[in-house]
Amino acid sequence: MKQPVGVRVRLGKRSYPIWIGSQWLSGSAPRIRQATRARTFLVLSTGRILGFHGPALKRSLRRLGQVHLLTVPDGEAAKNEHQLLRILRFLAEKGFQRDACLVTLGGGVVGDLGGLASALYMRGIDFIQVPTTLLAQVDASVGGKTAIDFHGVKNLIGAFHQPRTVLIDTAVLRTLPARVYRAGLAEVVKHGVIRDAAFFRWLENHVVEIVRRDPLAVAHMVRRSCEIKAAVVRMDERESGLRACLNFGHTLGHALESLRSSQGLQHGEAVAYGMVGASGISAEMGLCPEDVPARIQALLERLGLLKPLPQLDPGRILRLLSFDKKARAGKALFVLTRKMGAVSMNHNVPNRLILRALRHLQAPRPDVSGPA
Amino acid sequence: MKQPVGVRVRLGKRSYPIWIGSQWLSGSAPRIRQATRARTFLVLSTGRILGFHGPALKRSLRRLGQVHLLTVPDGEAAKNEHQLLRILRFLAEKGFQRDACLVTLGGGVVGDLGGLASALYMRGIDFIQVPTTLLAQVDASVGGKTAIDFHGVKNLIGAFHQPRTVLIDTAVLRTLPARVYRAGLAEVVKHGVIRDAAFFRWLENHVVEIVRRDPLAVAHMVRRSCEIKAAVVRMDERESGLRACLNFGHTLGHALESLRSSQGLQHGEAVAYGMVGASGISAEMGLCPEDVPARIQALLERLGLLKPLPQLDPGRILRLLSFDKKARAGKALFVLTRKMGAVSMNHNVPNRLILRALRHLQAPRPDVSGPA
Repeated sequence: MKQPVGVRVRLGKRSYPIWIGSQWLSGSAPRIRQATRARTFLVLSTGRILGFHGPALKRSLRRLGQVHLLTVPDGEAAKNEHQLLRILRFLAEKGFQRDACLVTLGGGVVGDLGGLASALYMRGIDFIQVPTTLLAQVDASVGGKTAIDFHGVKNLIGAFHQPRTVLIDTAVLRTLPARVYRAGLAEVVKHGVIRDAAFFRWLENHVVEIVRRDPLAVAHMVRRSCEIKAAVVRMDERESGLRACLNFGHTLGHALESLRSSQGLQHGEAVAYGMVGASGISAEMGLCPEDVPARIQALLERLGLLKPLPQLDPGRILRLLSFDKKARAGKALFVLTRKMGAVSMNHNVPNRLILRALRHLQAPRPDVSGPA
Repeated sequence: MKQPVGVRVRLGKRSYPIWIGSQWLSGSAPRIRQATRARTFLVLSTGRILGFHGPALKRSLRRLGQVHLLTVPDGEAAKNEHQLLRILRFLAEKGFQRDACLVTLGGGVVGDLGGLASALYMRGIDFIQVPTTLLAQVDASVGGKTAIDFHGVKNLIGAFHQPRTVLIDTAVLRTLPARVYRAGLAEVVKHGVIRDAAFFRWLENHVVEIVRRDPLAVAHMVRRSCEIKAAVVRMDERESGLRACLNFGHTLGHALESLRSSQGLQHGEAVAYGMVGASGISAEMGLCPEDVPARIQALLERLGLLKPLPQLDPGRILRLLSFDKKARAGKALFVLTRKMGAVSMNHNVPNRLILRALRHLQAPRPDVSGPA
């Protein structure tokens, strides 16, 4: 077992390390003890993930104190107020005190739900994330956003609550379904586009290794993604402005997700369409060179994303955009590319450009997907 | 209408002013506009309070934007998850966006409940408090604590969310029932005991004016209380240590409240017993002179507090103390007096001293109550 590598998320008193290693969860007790003095732990997971990765994590936690387990159902539908109250009731019934720690073992749903429960119980107890999907490792592990879906709106109810530490085991990605892995790659690409042209270039040059989940390539990709996101979040913990650049691809992406949620579009898949849409809009507005959307689209296709979209209802998408959390006076906030590695915010994208971008996403394309 | 006086709560980016005046709510639009850019407001209140003070507040808010109203039932029982979800659902159904502002008009229940809803909706929208009880004006208005009761435990679920501003109209105290007004005085006395011997002396010298709610005395008392609490909260926003001094009288107080909640002991009344208990324990332990508990008890009695307690179950109180939010290894955190105006924390108060303090609280006393 190699020692994990640390990425520090610098947020003053709320700073924390992300530890990235391979097959090291069963030996993570020292890192956990550095992060929390807790003697009582609740591991929140799903039955399936607990079967895969529970034993290694429990081995570490049992050295540190008492371990309780609670599972929630698989899938986004579990991110609701009923599961949230169920977790809080469990903590209360077991008599968890302020010196307890909630550990989320799973993807974004488990992390968001458990994170919010730990933010609210006694106005905040310690919280450790053990993300088991690529998306959760490169995205949810940095930034302290927690939430549930409510009244049909994604992440409508939530809080900012930073974890004490994040334990990433890249080996868990090997068992991830191909589609879930690919969806996570969208956020990796995003980090290159918004902040780091060299990283984007590295991704272009390592598509084969990334798709076959080569351990060294995966380790570098996860680490660099966490570093980029940590740098952004550090400048704007509570999303007052700058942090909104992380929303690149998410404006259209969220709308597509709401629209097709019943058909099960994955978050990363939706963001991939959103990034092509936003960079295309940017080029149309003359804000960036034509090759930026072209390179983004080509890389995403080689990574196995951007499968053809079915017929969309453009009117419904425009309505959803006007209700976006970051909308102002009914106009959605778009993050637009300026060049590779740099973006800017825009509240005034004309509807006709949004509609043109949607038509582009639905246009039939030659299949150029890589070796996925 | 005189201009209100400002007390600044300094918390970096989350700093805010408390405005204290008399009969000025109908002219508070400029202060509200300084605090928030919101164009949509939800006033959360109870039917009774809205009848008394709603018109003046609405006059101000309507100059600034659209005003919605929502009422919750009177009393602590409304501080539950059902009312919380009801408020959140109302916000979602009306399509409130991030640029909205929730205004709580009422006592601690309305403030705690509305504050938590505003902390959670879209991970935090603007929030303005208009406290209408003495307790809420001198206590809940500073510190950003929001909460609901859950699973039979007071404030078990909550968040820290600072208001954008607090509007205090001391004239609203005139219509407050005598018992509710007196209960609020307990927290005023607390502020003197923990930080300001001169303020405690001022209270001793102005019992008559305070009890008859003389406008000048009330204005000074509310302002000085807010200043003291603001100074404490500034040093420790998230209650990592020092802020716990505000818990003086609350350790025993919370236990008494839990015990007698069905019989309707008010929070401030419970805190008054708790302060006599804690200062008595401190003197027994030799940590402070005998005259400290004596002066605290005498002042509280002159203010009409400390009515005789009925028979208590000491075993049940000890159990409740061991489950207190701030307990460590089952030992409650006591805030003990060192001298008038200074306290220290103690996690190791022997049970026999707690039991002796309880006996003292139940002992028959000569009626020395003031002109209440």
